[in-house]
Amino acid sequence: ERDGDGRPRLAYIDQRRLPGELAFERTGDWRVVVDAVKSLAVRGAPALGIAGAAAVALWAGNVGAARATSRGCAGEGPCFLEELGPVADEVAAARPTAVNLAWGVRRAVARARRAVASGAPSALVADELFDEVKHMEAEDEAVNRAIGAHGAELLAPGSRILTHCNAGSLGTAFYGTALGIVYAAAAQGKVERVYADETRPVGQGARLTAWELSRANVPCTLICDDMAASLMAAGRVDAVLVGADRIAANGDAANKIGTYGVAVLARHHGIPFYMAAPTSTIDPTLPDGSGIPIEERDPAEVLPQPLPGVEVWNPAFDVTPAALITRIVTERGVFEPGKLVY
Amino acid sequence: ERDGDGRPRLAYIDQRRLPGELAFERTGDWRVVVDAVKSLAVRGAPALGIAGAAAVALWAGNVGAARATSRGCAGEGPCFLEELGPVADEVAAARPTAVNLAWGVRRAVARARRAVASGAPSALVADELFDEVKHMEAEDEAVNRAIGAHGAELLAPGSRILTHCNAGSLGTAFYGTALGIVYAAAAQGKVERVYADETRPVGQGARLTAWELSRANVPCTLICDDMAASLMAAGRVDAVLVGADRIAANGDAANKIGTYGVAVLARHHGIPFYMAAPTSTIDPTLPDGSGIPIEERDPAEVLPQPLPGVEVWNPAFDVTPAALITRIVTERGVFEPGKLVY
Repeated sequence: ERDGDGRPRLAYIDQRRLPGELAFERTGDWRVVVDAVKSLAVRGAPALGIAGAAAVALWAGNVGAARATSRGCAGEGPCFLEELGPVADEVAAARPTAVNLAWGVRRAVARARRAVASGAPSALVADELFDEVKHMEAEDEAVNRAIGAHGAELLAPGSRILTHCNAGSLGTAFYGTALGIVYAAAAQGKVERVYADETRPVGQGARLTAWELSRANVPCTLICDDMAASLMAAGRVDAVLVGADRIAANGDAANKIGTYGVAVLARHHGIPFYMAAPTSTIDPTLPDGSGIPIEERDPAEVLPQPLPGVEVWNPAFDVTPAALITRIVTERGVFEPGKLVY
Repeated sequence: ERDGDGRPRLAYIDQRRLPGELAFERTGDWRVVVDAVKSLAVRGAPALGIAGAAAVALWAGNVGAARATSRGCAGEGPCFLEELGPVADEVAAARPTAVNLAWGVRRAVARARRAVASGAPSALVADELFDEVKHMEAEDEAVNRAIGAHGAELLAPGSRILTHCNAGSLGTAFYGTALGIVYAAAAQGKVERVYADETRPVGQGARLTAWELSRANVPCTLICDDMAASLMAAGRVDAVLVGADRIAANGDAANKIGTYGVAVLARHHGIPFYMAAPTSTIDPTLPDGSGIPIEERDPAEVLPQPLPGVEVWNPAFDVTPAALITRIVTERGVFEPGKLVY
């Protein structure tokens, strides 16, 4: 959106404050967006793609264009692109695992390059980037609705679904990927109940998924992560549905820490394990999951008060091998993980 | 122990306040012990066995003996036993899953019956119960040291061990069952590191095991429950060691919620899964694990602030089938789960 003076700004929900408070933040400062990404105020692979592009657009509209115009370099466009480079790199590096962040940044940079190449002045380039972000938001919702429609066909009436982390409206522009399938299936009367893993240490399941599902009137039961196995053994899970942060060419997929364990449990109990993600989550440069960088975060997320002599390991993601993934659902359809179309 | 007036009382650590505070509580009131058991101030199957007997002994020494003496019924001993019955039932029912609690109560009642049958006056019966509890404490430590010695033989030098919940000094009279094996193996220089699952929702791993291991100078890394699968996939776990709350005749075993999932993950990764427990944890009246009652606890343990429209499922235990247990270690030795000696 734009503020009263027409300058671009980004409106986002500070997800750290949910479910206690639904707080909308607005900023025109690209560095604030980078901090929001690092602090998990904004999270979810598709949302990160948009946030990455938005940070670039905010820099362009509120900093870059003016600076390129005022600098005395030979060409305004090249000056703009020269300054854009390190900004784009910094945004893309805010978090390492979800490929969508870098994808969103690259998409914005490519749009800027095209605009500069066509001779547009920097102010116009910035306007184009603003439009690009608006377009990405609309596109993401459309992609999610397509994922929902494809994925809902995988579910039988009366389905009891287990999910891990949050791949819902909060982690996307709107509607969600894994939860997009839930919403689409629920609209068809197919969803009996969703079980949400609380998803330690950050609690995206407890704080975000449970909150989001209750607002959407989808019956929801919250469990601790270590209860999922019992739930499956009791015959109370018909399908597992999760999102993804980066999918390698062979179908190996990184997602929130704990996803891999749920996949192993699902296989042990003969329960189908579905991943849902936009095609932008696929990273064809990686042949398999071993090359996906796994972000390790602050031990204080796990242990707020350090205990002397106690170390903490806090990886934010894990990689589920393609062999444990029943199907991957993208906006293009339902695929065996090794046969993705992208 | 006894207070300044010679009346029996129980000293215990309020485990709810660890690791922030090491608080010793003392009470002569059997109902306070029952509350401590219900609230998890005292927990751990072997510790519950002692607490159960201690509650009976406190009732006998501080209430029952005096009442039986003062009542005008035909025989003092029968009066005492008559009143003991409902007290014993109430203590034994404080928590349903760990069989040791009822076992400890039964042991105290049996001792009281024998004393009454031999013609002892109630005050002497109470003294005998006091001695019984002291004896059980010493016996539990000896049992744990035997478990430790047997179990340590299962571990190779340089072992990296994953544990779930707390089966250490805090859950027993002293030394621990699963952690007893760790302490014995560490004394032999065999333990490279222990990984402690935090063990949601109550956090016995984060609050108790990590604290206990750090005090014992055993290298310890705390992880969230949903990180165990990644740790195993990375080849960083050589063995899983856990305690048990009730073991059926066929070797199926209940333990803290999440244990079953860890067992499935260990099997998937080809990692041995060992359970350690005193013989008093075996319940030969149950042919298999399907008959073990699973306690469901307050949703507030999982979700302190209720979310409208969100249900919570909070089972405190799960059952690991014998087929997933590599060996069960008791004070009598190391057994295949189906071939337990008891």
